Amino acid sequence: MWIPDRQSKKPLYQQIADHLEQRISYGEYPPGSLLPSERKLADQLGVNRSTVILAFAELRSMGIIESRTGSGTRVSKTKWGATPKHTPNWSRYAEGGSFLPNPPFMRRIREALHQHPSLIDFASGELSADLAPNDEITKLMSEHKYTSYLGYDNPQGYVPLRQALVSYLERHRGIHTTESSILITSGSQQSLYLITQCLLSPGDAVAIEDPSYCYSLPMFQSAGLRLFRLPVDSSGIRPEDIRALYKKHRIKMVFMNPNFQNPTGMVFDAERRKQLLDLASELRLPIVEDDPFSLTAYDGVPPSPLKSMDMIGSILYIGSFSKIAASGMRIGWMVAPNSIVERLADARQQMDFGLSVIPQQVAAQFLNSNHFVPHLERLRMQLQFKRDLLIEALQKELPDLVTFSIPQGGLHLWCKLIPEVHDGKLLEEAIRRGVVFVPGSVYGSDSGYIRFTYARAKAEEIGPGIAKFAEALRELIGEKPAL
Amino acid sequence: MWIPDRQSKKPLYQQIADHLEQRISYGEYPPGSLLPSERKLADQLGVNRSTVILAFAELRSMGIIESRTGSGTRVSKTKWGATPKHTPNWSRYAEGGSFLPNPPFMRRIREALHQHPSLIDFASGELSADLAPNDEITKLMSEHKYTSYLGYDNPQGYVPLRQALVSYLERHRGIHTTESSILITSGSQQSLYLITQCLLSPGDAVAIEDPSYCYSLPMFQSAGLRLFRLPVDSSGIRPEDIRALYKKHRIKMVFMNPNFQNPTGMVFDAERRKQLLDLASELRLPIVEDDPFSLTAYDGVPPSPLKSMDMIGSILYIGSFSKIAASGMRIGWMVAPNSIVERLADARQQMDFGLSVIPQQVAAQFLNSNHFVPHLERLRMQLQFKRDLLIEALQKELPDLVTFSIPQGGLHLWCKLIPEVHDGKLLEEAIRRGVVFVPGSVYGSDSGYIRFTYARAKAEEIGPGIAKFAEALRELIGEKPAL
Ligand SMILES: Cc1ncc(COP(=O)(O)O)c(C=O)c1O
Ligand SMILES: Cc1ncc(COP(=O)(O)O)c(C=O)c1O
Repeated sequence: MWIPDRQSKKPLYQQIADHLEQRISYGEYPPGSLLPSERKLADQLGVNRSTVILAFAELRSMGIIESRTGSGTRVSKTKWGATPKHTPNWSRYAEGGSFLPNPPFMRRIREALHQHPSLIDFASGELSADLAPNDEITKLMSEHKYTSYLGYDNPQGYVPLRQALVSYLERHRGIHTTESSILITSGSQQSLYLITQCLLSPGDAVAIEDPSYCYSLPMFQSAGLRLFRLPVDSSGIRPEDIRALYKKHRIKMVFMNPNFQNPTGMVFDAERRKQLLDLASELRLPIVEDDPFSLTAYDGVPPSPLKSMDMIGSILYIGSFSKIAASGMRIGWMVAPNSIVERLADARQQMDFGLSVIPQQVAAQFLNSNHFVPHLERLRMQLQFKRDLLIEALQKELPDLVTFSIPQGGLHLWCKLIPEVHDGKLLEEAIRRGVVFVPGSVYGSDSGYIRFTYARAKAEEIGPGIAKFAEALRELIGEKPAL
Repeated sequence: MWIPDRQSKKPLYQQIADHLEQRISYGEYPPGSLLPSERKLADQLGVNRSTVILAFAELRSMGIIESRTGSGTRVSKTKWGATPKHTPNWSRYAEGGSFLPNPPFMRRIREALHQHPSLIDFASGELSADLAPNDEITKLMSEHKYTSYLGYDNPQGYVPLRQALVSYLERHRGIHTTESSILITSGSQQSLYLITQCLLSPGDAVAIEDPSYCYSLPMFQSAGLRLFRLPVDSSGIRPEDIRALYKKHRIKMVFMNPNFQNPTGMVFDAERRKQLLDLASELRLPIVEDDPFSLTAYDGVPPSPLKSMDMIGSILYIGSFSKIAASGMRIGWMVAPNSIVERLADARQQMDFGLSVIPQQVAAQFLNSNHFVPHLERLRMQLQFKRDLLIEALQKELPDLVTFSIPQGGLHLWCKLIPEVHDGKLLEEAIRRGVVFVPGSVYGSDSGYIRFTYARAKAEEIGPGIAKFAEALRELIGEKPAL
């Protein structure tokens, strides 16, 4: 990102005015389009709002922009350019299609992290740099020779990666399959996208857990699906709830994250698993098993996936490297009946022509290497260590104000707030103090919960982060004077 | 892919029966689902059809599969497994969503290339291994250290790659922009997908060139768009045709590939470019400029893109590494007004969470390295060399039966057949003789054309490949006895 040069003799406001003029002339902000607000620009450029006000005044005096109270600052339609030209009505185009925007809290969190990279991050559901196998990846990449052809890949995914996954699934997940039943995807996200877009039609009813990661994904609504809730208790969902939903709404599919569920950390009960599989067979109901966390089991004994007990092919199984290696690799997989894999591979050609071969090669090498199992062991220990730091900090700072169960795997702690607080206000108070988390309501459940991700922050940030959070909370419930 | 072991003492048919039984037990072919045909399996496994017939008979005798005349072979519903279970009706699910399957010719070509990797490939629109910068990529990857965080990336794309593209676009394409107006995508394909899915709505009318690469993409129909044709002559499309379509159908967008168009190789005329830009402004009509080929210009002077003359932001500009480096990298970009980039970045989060950081880093390093320009020079020379080999072969083998104009850039030669031949029969005859191409009708135009890609085959294959093609053609028009 461009930022003004504080060493330069040219005043800051003038640098900003010149920069904006240039971007407008490049067509980034076409005639008539809205510029970012003064506050947002000030934040982005790291200057005072008054400096941006001066820059806008300068551009206004040149006839390049126009401000109208209440409707923001726009690029002038008539004065810009030699003749009065007509730009497409881009804002109308931006409303096309059926993709709903991401939830406001998620956008706010992303924006805050972008503007203040030093925020202590309990929000991003991913590993910190020191937990990722960076050294291993560097090493594997430096050893690889690209002698063969880097062409359009098989739409189902790079064959050696699918072969490596056959052994991985057998050894680590008790799932027997062959490479023709595996589809490589850009993380679990793309598996879910493909399922919702290609196997379901608008108006179809589906069941998802409540709370659930899925509620944070506008993807389900974008696909026009009708969502029904399966409440999660300490043993996960209740199969009889599925039967009831099926009777009432003819649900077409069930989405589940049975092992160390995001956000609750729950493990789906073994007895209920059996009931669920029987029910799936009775109702001919496909179950999507989203299983990104199981290998993080702190005791080293990952729960068996539903898929390993599926004798009839009711389960679409989804896995990912994101939570056990690095989310930036964007490597995920789906195990499904052959006809479904072929259908989805064909459709995904229209979307992106398949994944880059390079990270698929790295992933295959990593899975086949003798780095993989030691990496997992180290990851489990370090995640458990961070979890314990978080618990300790919560017990120290907020023993009276929160309750939670202790997660036995995964990246998240689901925390109930005892006092009633306004989600949005708490988030803003926390950001102001330098810490960020995800309000529980994003996951579809009642407010009054917080998802703390302990994997992303540095170990030494966890205590101070919770201290800041505690300040924000106590401030809001009036226990301490305002900052 | 599993293939039977010819050294083993177990008979081939028995190995195949055991293998299929295992895959059925894994849920790859759930009860009631259709198995591949005997012919397809025989092809895939490299055995005679009679061997597959024996294997099927074995499985039938065990009650695992059932064959009914005319409806193929299915996994038994009742005999498989301990109890009669009920699998989801997967074939119904596979019909869900709105994604149309890829065109039959494209599927046939892909299947043929998969089954017979030794086919001489004039069909795949990409570079051969020796044209790709494999050595450079190997070198850059071996130098890179992954010390920083491999986390979820900025949804707009890796910042250093966007910065590298700002200089690239300025230097090589005369386009002035900043990194905030660039979206990184999985090749041009994903840019087109995002535009059709997120900026247009079902029922919208759009104009595309005829013939055009776009006609080979069911993506446009999957998005529910109404397609109208802009005939391409030796100077490209005629702007007045756009005006007529606008009047009649209120087209919402125009898709063009103005430089070394796929499949015709045409360069859009300079005078018409000016008219088009004026028209776009008059009608407030956005133009998508898909520009993957221009840097291959054999004279070293790439045509200027429309975007470089766009003063008001009417052009959505799309670029890609696929045709100038390697399609398997899956790196493309879009330059668009800020509001559009933000909208598409938000939507693409729902699809795949952004691209893998790894190939984006490699791409940025490559663009910034002093390998890039020498690579382009070498590429241009070698493409021209291959083009000349193709022309020479066509003139030698088929002087009486084909006409074409000589492409000055790009990867393809668009060849008119003088005799009338059946597209599908010609393709099958050619495949039987060991060579594959794309029938022109895939690109929406009248039959009677062939697209020959000369970039993909090895130089020494081009002559022999055209000789085989000539045999196939002469066979069909009855000039030679059947093989
Ligand atoms: C339950 C669950 N599914 C899917 C995803 C998507 O992850 P990815 O696409 O990185 O694999 C996440 C990420 O937070 C998740 O928690
Ligand atoms: C005109 C045109 N646009 C887009 C593409 C898609 O290419 P990619 O997604 O690999 O950039 C192609 C590939 O053949 C093409 O010819």
